[in-house]
Amino acid sequence: MESKIKKWTTLESRYIIRRPWLTARVDRVQLPDGRINPEHYVLEYPDWVNVIAVTAEGEFVMIRQYRHAMDVVLVELCAGVAEAGETMLEAAQRELLEETGYGGGTWRELMAIGQNPSTCTNLTHCFLAEGVARVQDQSLDASEDIEVLLLSRAELERLMRDGQMLQALMAAPLWRYLAEHPE
Amino acid sequence: MESKIKKWTTLESRYIIRRPWLTARVDRVQLPDGRINPEHYVLEYPDWVNVIAVTAEGEFVMIRQYRHAMDVVLVELCAGVAEAGETMLEAAQRELLEETGYGGGTWRELMAIGQNPSTCTNLTHCFLAEGVARVQDQSLDASEDIEVLLLSRAELERLMRDGQMLQALMAAPLWRYLAEHPE
Repeated sequence: MESKIKKWTTLESRYIIRRPWLTARVDRVQLPDGRINPEHYVLEYPDWVNVIAVTAEGEFVMIRQYRHAMDVVLVELCAGVAEAGETMLEAAQRELLEETGYGGGTWRELMAIGQNPSTCTNLTHCFLAEGVARVQDQSLDASEDIEVLLLSRAELERLMRDGQMLQALMAAPLWRYLAEHPE
Repeated sequence: MESKIKKWTTLESRYIIRRPWLTARVDRVQLPDGRINPEHYVLEYPDWVNVIAVTAEGEFVMIRQYRHAMDVVLVELCAGVAEAGETMLEAAQRELLEETGYGGGTWRELMAIGQNPSTCTNLTHCFLAEGVARVQDQSLDASEDIEVLLLSRAELERLMRDGQMLQALMAAPLWRYLAEHPE
């Protein structure tokens, strides 16, 4: 669709912090009408992956872990960051295998979405893996404390309708899956 | 569901930046097994709102604007932050009125979701407003450059299937709406 909305011009960028888990900069930007915003914050992240993994029996492979900023234990999709040299698909397959011990099956990218295109630079690539099976034990990073759960479709839907699927980057592909796979 | 997953303990918090549009702290945390992570970053935000607004004629009231971190012009839901003293519903109604000139109708909260419960403290309250109508002109903040679009359901679905609804906090309630309102 054609648009009359114009982009901003970045006049200056300054990094506030550059650490492996947080890279933030402040941009001085000029709007299309000439006005200056001296302070637009941008969070730079690498692209992330997550995966809706369904077994041959129709069970959803989920994980439960503690989420510090909201101080809650949540049931979520398996997710992570690509390592150097990996494709997004390879990263998603590795994360599922490490975090849950599940692998195999047929994989496709369902969608790519952003946390917040106004303030965050990255996309999350959301995969659908159908027909996965348990092929090994979990192999977790030192900081990971993850419980694997198999949910039936009814249990997954109940959890989502109850508002327990808090993570928007996971709720979006899961609701898309339910919209496109009505029972 | 009962869980063996335990919370972390925060040993120390230090703010890196405290500005109206970015408040970030680094927490020194202790994991359940006693190990220390000296550097978990938390972004503190107020709660946000967005709204799926549908006219009596079944058209979706959307907005198009520039999103700086990803350097793209996107079609999105109307969204914003609550002002002091407002409920989330009042904030959503005010944002829709200011950004689009649409109001009235029947409102309910569809869901509340987080950007990233591991790193961001806030929830976004997603409303569904049915039967809205144009009641006034747009009244934008100085920094806002917003084009109002009315999309048919078919146009909205096409945009979502094409991957143009990049914002996860908007894609999640929109896919939920489509899942729960099959044509």
